[in-house]
Amino acid sequence: MSSKPIVATMIGDPCGIGPEVVVKSIALGGVHGMCRPLVVGSTESVQQTVNMLKLKHTVRRVTDVDDAVGLDPAVIDVYDTGQLDPNFITLAKANRECGLASAAWLKEMEVLAAAGKVQATIMGPINTDALKMADKFDAVVGVEVGKTYLFLITGPLRVVHLTDHIPLRQVCDIISPDLVYKALRTMHDDFSRWGIPKPRIVVAGLNAHAYGDEDKYQIAPGVEKAKAEGIDVTGPAPPDSVFRWCIDGQYDAVLCMFHDQGHIAVKTWGFVGNCAMILGTPHIHMSVAHGTAFDIVGKGIANHEMMLTSMRHAASLGSGKGFYRDAAAA
Amino acid sequence: MSSKPIVATMIGDPCGIGPEVVVKSIALGGVHGMCRPLVVGSTESVQQTVNMLKLKHTVRRVTDVDDAVGLDPAVIDVYDTGQLDPNFITLAKANRECGLASAAWLKEMEVLAAAGKVQATIMGPINTDALKMADKFDAVVGVEVGKTYLFLITGPLRVVHLTDHIPLRQVCDIISPDLVYKALRTMHDDFSRWGIPKPRIVVAGLNAHAYGDEDKYQIAPGVEKAKAEGIDVTGPAPPDSVFRWCIDGQYDAVLCMFHDQGHIAVKTWGFVGNCAMILGTPHIHMSVAHGTAFDIVGKGIANHEMMLTSMRHAASLGSGKGFYRDAAAA
Repeated sequence: MSSKPIVATMIGDPCGIGPEVVVKSIALGGVHGMCRPLVVGSTESVQQTVNMLKLKHTVRRVTDVDDAVGLDPAVIDVYDTGQLDPNFITLAKANRECGLASAAWLKEMEVLAAAGKVQATIMGPINTDALKMADKFDAVVGVEVGKTYLFLITGPLRVVHLTDHIPLRQVCDIISPDLVYKALRTMHDDFSRWGIPKPRIVVAGLNAHAYGDEDKYQIAPGVEKAKAEGIDVTGPAPPDSVFRWCIDGQYDAVLCMFHDQGHIAVKTWGFVGNCAMILGTPHIHMSVAHGTAFDIVGKGIANHEMMLTSMRHAASLGSGKGFYRDAAAA
Repeated sequence: MSSKPIVATMIGDPCGIGPEVVVKSIALGGVHGMCRPLVVGSTESVQQTVNMLKLKHTVRRVTDVDDAVGLDPAVIDVYDTGQLDPNFITLAKANRECGLASAAWLKEMEVLAAAGKVQATIMGPINTDALKMADKFDAVVGVEVGKTYLFLITGPLRVVHLTDHIPLRQVCDIISPDLVYKALRTMHDDFSRWGIPKPRIVVAGLNAHAYGDEDKYQIAPGVEKAKAEGIDVTGPAPPDSVFRWCIDGQYDAVLCMFHDQGHIAVKTWGFVGNCAMILGTPHIHMSVAHGTAFDIVGKGIANHEMMLTSMRHAASLGSGKGFYRDAAAA
C-alpha cells in the first residue's frame, strides 16, 4: 500500500473549464510522484475532456475509495456515484442540475475526508449562476468568522484572512483579541501538522503603521496570548510591510485583518500560480482562484497552472512536507 | 537662456545620507540633459560630501537663482543663505539646529517656487527626531485632507491617496463625493499640465469588490461628477484589482481611499525606485521614500536611485513631458 496521500479533486462545474484543468493537471502534471490523485465528479465529463484533449488515458469509474485508486498514471480514477445525468453537461451554459451536482460532489468529498479515505480535497471552479439556480450558493461559498479562514498562497506569499466579505466599517468593530488568538492557534496547529514545525507568523495591524486604538486594544492582546502559549508570532505590524517580509522569507505566513489587505498584496505582486485554501476545516481543503471561464471552454486552451499548484500544495501538506516550493518562487 | 526647468533639491538633514544621494544624483545621474539642478542647503555639507565621495566637482554657493545656475555638469550649485552653522553637521547624530535648518530650507524652496524661480522642488530625507527637537515636525510632514494628497510613483504604478494617516474607522466616515471629486479634479488638471493630455484614472472602492454603502453613496457620486465634467475616470472599482490594472498600463494612475490600500500595493509589488509627490501644491513637489539612514552615513554606500528617480520625474513633469519612463518599468 502506498503511503502517499490521496488528493480528491472535484471537477467543478462540468459546463466550465474545471474538468479540463483537472484532467490536464493529473495527466500532464506529474503529480503521481507526490500523491494519489482521485477525481470526484462525472465520469462522462472526464471522458469527454480526455477525448477533447486527445489524451490516451483510461477513465475509470470508481464508487469506493480502495487501495488501488490513483496509483496508475495512465488511468484517471473518477469517484462517481451518479449525481449527474450526462445530458446536462451543456458546455459554456450554466444549468441547475450541474449546480446541484457541484454541491453534491463537494459534500461527497467532505464525507470521504471525514472518514479518512482521502487526505486532502480540492474544489474545481464552480459556477455562481448554476449554484444559485440550485439554491446551493450560500451552502458552498463563504467562510465563517472565527471558525474558517480564506488562505491565499502565491509562491512564498501566504496570507490568512481574519475576515472576508464584511464591510470595512464592521471589520473595525468585530476584530477582537479572541478572534485574533483563535486564528493564530489554527494557523500554528495546522501548519505544524503539515510539516512546518515552528511556523513564523506575522500579524498585520488594522491602521496605517499598525498605530491605532484597534491595533492596541483589539489585536495586540490576542497576539500576546498566542505568544505566551509559545506560538512564534510578531505584530501587529505595519500592514504595508508585512507582505514583503513574507515574500522575502522572514515569515511563513501573514495573518491579515480584512479581504483587501491580503488581496491587494496577492493580486498586485503578480506571481503566477495562486491558489486558495479554507483554513479551519478538519482536513486540507483547497480551491483555485479562477472561475469556469465559459468563453474558452471546450477549446483545450485553459491554463491548468493554478489547479496543478493546488494539487502540489495539497500533496505536500498532506504528506507532512510543508508547502510545495515552486522553483519559480525561489 | 535654457528652457530646461530648474529643479531645486533640498539636501535633507545634513547629518543623514541626504547630501550623499543628492550629490550622487547630480554628479553621476546625467540629469543635466533634462533639467538644471540646484541644491538647496548647506554649501559645507555638500563640499564635505563631494570630498567624501572623491569627486572632482566644484561646489559653488549661490544666494540668488539667476540664469547661470544648474548649467555646468562640473559644478554643483548650492542655494545657501546661511541657515546652518556647519559645526552642527554631526554625522549620524540628530540635532536641533539641523532640524531648524531643514525646515528653513523647505520654506526657501517654497518661496523660490512661488516666485517662479524654480519649476520643481524635491525634499531630501529629513530626520524626524531633529524636526521634533526643533518643534517643526508638524509644519513639515503631512497632508491636508481635501487639499493635498500623498502621491506614490513606482514605475508604472502611480497611486494618489485620498487620505493619509487617519484611523481606518474615521476614513469610512469622512470619504465624501466632494472629497473624491476634488482629488480627481486635482489629478486631472495637474497631470494634464505636466504632459499627460487625457489622463486615465481609476478609483479604488473602500470595501471588498467596491461593494458597499460607502462605495455607492460616498464615492460613486464624486466619480460621476468628475465624469460629467469630461474627466476620464472609472470606478469605484475592486481595490484588489486596480493596482495591477495600472501596472499593466490600462490607467495612468489610481486614486485610492486610504494609506494602506496604496502602500500595500506599492511596497509589496517590489519595484525599485519609488518616489513620492505631494499633489495639490501650487508647484511640483517631490520627496524620496527613504529616511536619513544614520547607520550607513558617511560611507559612500547610500543608494541614490530613489533620489535620481525623483529628479527625473520632476524634470520630465516640469518640462511638460509627462512621467519619466524608466527602461526598467517597460
